[in-house]
Amino acid sequence: MEYAVRGMVVIKADEINQQLKESPGSFPFDHIVYTNIGNPHSVGQKPLTWPRQVMALVDLPMEGGIDHPIVSSMFPADAIERAKLVKEGLGGHGSGAYTHSQGPMMFREEICRFIEERDGLEKGAAIENNIFMTNGASAGIEMILNALIADPSSGVMIPRPQYPIYSATIEKLGGKKVGYAMDEKKGWSASLEELERSLAEAQKDGIKVNSFVLINPGNPTGQVLTPEAVRDVVKFCSKHNLVLLADEVYQENVYAEKKKFYSCRHAARDAGLDNGKVELVSFHSTSKGLLGECGRRGGYMEMVGFDPLIRDQMYKLASSNLCANVPGQVMTSIMVNGPKKGDVSYEKHEEEKKKIYDGLRKRAKIVGDGFNTIPGISCEPVQGSMYCFPKVDIPAGAIAAAEAQGITPDTLYAVSLLENTGICVVPASGFGQEEGRCGFRTTFLPSEEEMFLVVDKVRKHHGEFCEKYQ
Amino acid sequence: MEYAVRGMVVIKADEINQQLKESPGSFPFDHIVYTNIGNPHSVGQKPLTWPRQVMALVDLPMEGGIDHPIVSSMFPADAIERAKLVKEGLGGHGSGAYTHSQGPMMFREEICRFIEERDGLEKGAAIENNIFMTNGASAGIEMILNALIADPSSGVMIPRPQYPIYSATIEKLGGKKVGYAMDEKKGWSASLEELERSLAEAQKDGIKVNSFVLINPGNPTGQVLTPEAVRDVVKFCSKHNLVLLADEVYQENVYAEKKKFYSCRHAARDAGLDNGKVELVSFHSTSKGLLGECGRRGGYMEMVGFDPLIRDQMYKLASSNLCANVPGQVMTSIMVNGPKKGDVSYEKHEEEKKKIYDGLRKRAKIVGDGFNTIPGISCEPVQGSMYCFPKVDIPAGAIAAAEAQGITPDTLYAVSLLENTGICVVPASGFGQEEGRCGFRTTFLPSEEEMFLVVDKVRKHHGEFCEKYQ
Repeated sequence: MEYAVRGMVVIKADEINQQLKESPGSFPFDHIVYTNIGNPHSVGQKPLTWPRQVMALVDLPMEGGIDHPIVSSMFPADAIERAKLVKEGLGGHGSGAYTHSQGPMMFREEICRFIEERDGLEKGAAIENNIFMTNGASAGIEMILNALIADPSSGVMIPRPQYPIYSATIEKLGGKKVGYAMDEKKGWSASLEELERSLAEAQKDGIKVNSFVLINPGNPTGQVLTPEAVRDVVKFCSKHNLVLLADEVYQENVYAEKKKFYSCRHAARDAGLDNGKVELVSFHSTSKGLLGECGRRGGYMEMVGFDPLIRDQMYKLASSNLCANVPGQVMTSIMVNGPKKGDVSYEKHEEEKKKIYDGLRKRAKIVGDGFNTIPGISCEPVQGSMYCFPKVDIPAGAIAAAEAQGITPDTLYAVSLLENTGICVVPASGFGQEEGRCGFRTTFLPSEEEMFLVVDKVRKHHGEFCEKYQ
Repeated sequence: MEYAVRGMVVIKADEINQQLKESPGSFPFDHIVYTNIGNPHSVGQKPLTWPRQVMALVDLPMEGGIDHPIVSSMFPADAIERAKLVKEGLGGHGSGAYTHSQGPMMFREEICRFIEERDGLEKGAAIENNIFMTNGASAGIEMILNALIADPSSGVMIPRPQYPIYSATIEKLGGKKVGYAMDEKKGWSASLEELERSLAEAQKDGIKVNSFVLINPGNPTGQVLTPEAVRDVVKFCSKHNLVLLADEVYQENVYAEKKKFYSCRHAARDAGLDNGKVELVSFHSTSKGLLGECGRRGGYMEMVGFDPLIRDQMYKLASSNLCANVPGQVMTSIMVNGPKKGDVSYEKHEEEKKKIYDGLRKRAKIVGDGFNTIPGISCEPVQGSMYCFPKVDIPAGAIAAAEAQGITPDTLYAVSLLENTGICVVPASGFGQEEGRCGFRTTFLPSEEEMFLVVDKVRKHHGEFCEKYQ
């Protein structure tokens, strides 16, 4: 099992970071630029104010807590009011008690209303009983894969490239990965023909394919699928009785003009398949979007179209972990139900969100456009998510050198980039890619200034690397 | 897969709770007394003040946050100082960023010093690299069992009775449970003969037993093992090359006179086996003890005596979940490193802890002594943990009635108790017990007054139940 975003290059980066502290000047740079992981707060994004105010108020002790006379000089009225509501939703026990295994009813109601509003559904279309609050999206994905992988012949279709939680978890559980190729030349989309080909081939090999993973907006590839493309996937899953795992954690992170997030839930409705004709699990998280609250490990999943017996089995699985962490649940509730127009904190909250969104959009362009000006590097426009996934031409000498070291060529490239510039990216091979392709994934989370420097340093390094291995 | 503490009786209790809200007076009681789960805050235990102050300060937003001029009128100086230290330990990013997969170095250092002090070890005996911070103990237990259960022949020795995370997780992963009997007549201890018998029998059946679970203080049985008994287990595991999983989450919850918690780590040292001669994983949690912070899902595990390659594999497994939730990590850091003598909050903190401890000890006696005064019910003295596990004589008529309904006799008993008194206990069969035994597990977390009532109501119900099924 490998986990590239925390793999060899990152471990090396941490070591260099330590060396830089112990003997400054020992490398030709003074700090590591971590672009290996979508961890916004670690590279300077500030937490949104209002959610943190509510969090802190919920956690305050009984004595000298939310009813302390000076609380109102420190916190806005709508944060205090919300914190009181949250405590009520937690059965009056605050954040120190286990909740219902799926999360408290009040939070699940908020999530249902959020889904309905986002997808233009009538009230009651989303059902509280089908919501499971989780420790981040990862925990939900693991839980579902656990239920799906019954034996070594169970297969899960995953995109290539994909985010490594899928490959790692399927391997851990002893199931089969069935890759379908995202086409780089077509803006990282997958054709129906490719899906059918991949499925048929796996079935021919005796694999019992029972599920399908879609990551939209894409990680590591940054594309935002069209409504037609999403509907095609939903119909494909319905036709072949595949459980659709919709990884939609980047739903707020859409930057391209004329592109909008379109959920699998929405597609199922539009295709007339949300009446039990497709089994769909959609994952969301507090870690991405504009909150970027990775440390909370907050998130939820919605199960749509499942047999109630299967849902009950999921309840049992969830129960063996008792419940998701409560501060993460509180953050999830805040994510789906922020300040409303007219609330005292509304304007400020929206302003903070806009600033983060504008910054992300700008930096997506800086890296996307920037890398394309480097001869030998090319990348598709970044439409969404937090990542850019350029292709890199690597000279034959480097391929030979990598082979001699027993590593992939793009690992050799990433290590060289790290050691020469301090930039920590993840080799593209950690996500899977077409035979013969080389590249890397980078976030664009560090500051604008830093991202301009990243592009310049990659340019300089690429020239030197090609020269060295010519 | 079953999970008794969130099983059928509890689901029924929640339904009745809802009915009581909708039509008060519909049952012969006005509220449910939840004694099914060790969830102290849900039944009135107040959070300790200082840990919550630090938590809230760490979570405050940047602006109007910890440097706000009136913070010092609301929070004591040592909480502010600690919160600043914690933020430093989190790399200056606060609680919104993913940490190192095992937890930040500062927290792991605090945990190591805590272990060394608790077990009288020299500084450096516990190693930061061997500490993994987890989402509660459950997540650590799952992670380790995941690594241990390679195929359907992999076996794990678990006590009978046991806490259901073990049986449920082993079943989920497709391994084999190998039960060893705790002897009720000997205060719920296990003899070496029984361990050898159980292991030999499993091996005869072709099971590859590779690990052993010890829960001390006991859940559901409430015993606190003697140092000799713990050393026997450690030696047994060393002799047979079994990985020892030491579930020590109740280490602070020892009430019996002359009893002290003695860790497996300590036993390994005293037996001269902590130098690679036994592989030991010890689990701890913020959910129990005197904190009772279940909602945080905070905890850690220490791996002792493992091959570095196995430790590295665990790092990869941990990485696929990125990190444990950060508020839970902060609470864990506070648990192992509270206010020190001389700090402004020290006296108050100790006082609050003592009050909780005294209450638990008193109520352990109320239920232990109380149940023993009921003809047909008997229980071993509660020496530790949060549970009492009485044995109940059930009339033959009830056994026949249960059989007709397809449930265990003690489930019939627990449902009857619930419907007649509102007391929600867990049938002993959910934890496993000797053939023919019946009983239940109850916490003693609700108030003293409530626990007296519980004993009285159980007495009255037991008489009526026996009469009905005579």
